[in-house]
Amino acid sequence: MEDSIANLIDTYHELNAAVVEELDEEPSPLGFMRYVARNQPFVVRRAAKHWTAVRKWNADYLSRTMEDEAVKVVVTPRGNADAVVEQGDGSQAFVEPHETFEPFKRFLEDVRSSSQMFGKAGSNVKYAQTQNDNLRNEYETLYAGVPKDIPFARIALGAGADAINLWLGDDRSVTSLHKDNYENIYVQIRGQKHFVLLPPVEMPCINEQLLPKGRYVPCETTGDLEVQLDDEAEPVPVALWDPDMPDKLTTPYSYLAKPLRVTLREGDMLYLPSLWYHKVSQSVGDEGFVCAVNYWYDMDFSGHFWASNNFVRDVVNSEKMKPAYPELETDGQT
Amino acid sequence: MEDSIANLIDTYHELNAAVVEELDEEPSPLGFMRYVARNQPFVVRRAAKHWTAVRKWNADYLSRTMEDEAVKVVVTPRGNADAVVEQGDGSQAFVEPHETFEPFKRFLEDVRSSSQMFGKAGSNVKYAQTQNDNLRNEYETLYAGVPKDIPFARIALGAGADAINLWLGDDRSVTSLHKDNYENIYVQIRGQKHFVLLPPVEMPCINEQLLPKGRYVPCETTGDLEVQLDDEAEPVPVALWDPDMPDKLTTPYSYLAKPLRVTLREGDMLYLPSLWYHKVSQSVGDEGFVCAVNYWYDMDFSGHFWASNNFVRDVVNSEKMKPAYPELETDGQT
Ligand SMILES: O=C(O)CCC(=O)C(=O)O
Ligand SMILES: O=C(O)CCC(=O)C(=O)O
Repeated sequence: MEDSIANLIDTYHELNAAVVEELDEEPSPLGFMRYVARNQPFVVRRAAKHWTAVRKWNADYLSRTMEDEAVKVVVTPRGNADAVVEQGDGSQAFVEPHETFEPFKRFLEDVRSSSQMFGKAGSNVKYAQTQNDNLRNEYETLYAGVPKDIPFARIALGAGADAINLWLGDDRSVTSLHKDNYENIYVQIRGQKHFVLLPPVEMPCINEQLLPKGRYVPCETTGDLEVQLDDEAEPVPVALWDPDMPDKLTTPYSYLAKPLRVTLREGDMLYLPSLWYHKVSQSVGDEGFVCAVNYWYDMDFSGHFWASNNFVRDVVNSEKMKPAYPELETDGQT
Repeated sequence: MEDSIANLIDTYHELNAAVVEELDEEPSPLGFMRYVARNQPFVVRRAAKHWTAVRKWNADYLSRTMEDEAVKVVVTPRGNADAVVEQGDGSQAFVEPHETFEPFKRFLEDVRSSSQMFGKAGSNVKYAQTQNDNLRNEYETLYAGVPKDIPFARIALGAGADAINLWLGDDRSVTSLHKDNYENIYVQIRGQKHFVLLPPVEMPCINEQLLPKGRYVPCETTGDLEVQLDDEAEPVPVALWDPDMPDKLTTPYSYLAKPLRVTLREGDMLYLPSLWYHKVSQSVGDEGFVCAVNYWYDMDFSGHFWASNNFVRDVVNSEKMKPAYPELETDGQT
């Protein structure tokens, strides 16, 4: 069985170059559908260069537009929202960030003065990253700065975006390796994002484990963020392997992974296909913050794609459950 | 592991209705690409009703056009070209048909007078079914009767047809369950074809076995067709399960299969996606023969589809190789 899994990953790599293709311009709907069919990412450099957002969203413009509107902000000690945190006893938990609401202007000032560039690396890290269609809600006053939809994607997929999200933070936030059930069009507005991408067939490489869930909560006396485990919550499957520390927390398959790396600069557009694992870090630009907008389109669960990915996961998990064979049997134990 | 395989097939069926969708008209290239992406078949009734072939190809027209041109014909005792044949000793072989060249007019007359309708069921069965682009070669004089390409497929897939094949025979020929590495647009010209279709994830149901290869050869004295095994040839993987005899030669998964059935009548067009298993039988129309034309387009081996299907086959085969576990171990054997 181990051989079958290794074979799957190798076959995939024989048939697919481990690079993010660069297109000269946005694809046609049909052209896009071909990438969706292959579940293959691409980047279009400067595709959004004419967007109002790309031309105008500096700190001053954003502050004047959003003023003191309350926005949801997640807060973590090290930029680690939705990430694995080692507990005092050495065990691991999947920890969600502390959430607050802040007046936009203050939040933005905080972000700008706290990036690594400005040397305040000791403070808590704030990130506006609510993935709940926030650009058509909390940030509605900014929504006019981006297209209402990505035409090639809407036409190809036959439906508008399910969510349009704004991401705003400093260079200390890192989104850890995970996947989403969405076709994702990701556009860089300010600063840079550094994506590490793994295709869905590399599921056996990422060391998925069920971890208890926790949340950062400010300590009542010191105000410091501390992990509070949620004993009621179901454990959640989390990727433990980190493509940036490829020799740690490996599975027998991690060495077969061929992570794709791509940096988005201002105005660049990435198609991040459904179920691809992605880890995202960032660099601030001249304005001292990082901002991006993404469009999530429903993925197609029909056909073979979802079922096949489920199968890989099933085989990997049943492999893990199995006692080693046949060595274990030589002394008659089961 | 057995559970994972059953789960794969069940999940697929939960997400995909086991019916061939009927479209009112030919899809646009984008619409077609969505079916290709999902690897999902459809039929367009009467899509080809205006084709010269559908309007004009009766026995008289074909004979006048092709006259005595030599065409390749396969000959079998029971309409079983490329099929499993049980040998005298009870073993099975994958047997290819005898091949001859015949003047077209005589071949067509033979076909017309030998269909079940005309009661000559005892004679050998002839079928013109060379899948080698014969319509642009042997049958070139007929080629003008069909479109040079299927526009929606050519535009969607970004390439012309790799092969255009003519199929001509009587109602005793049955094409046994197999799959092709092609996107297939299949158009019925005369008579009917009865397709039984299985999606690629049902590979575990079809009881694929490696069989020795043979060929029908006329006996030097009697002229009767006899199987001659080819001891040099590599054994070939063949589906032993027949969806029309679902309780025979089963695997533990055969009962999970949900075969799709569709009959094509004159002018109907079927999209038969790559790697779908298909078994095809036929009925003659008023003209006493069955004729179809199909367009084979290269499938896309990149993306996850090919690799995933390979993986399913690998898991199924390594499952078969494994000794039963753990029962086998209780007495210390391996
Ligand atoms: O920009 C980020 O920090 C993460 C983006 C992401 O995970 C997504 O777009 O799904
Ligand atoms: O028409 C037939 O007999 C078989 C057709 C077939 O196998 C194909 O089109 O690939």
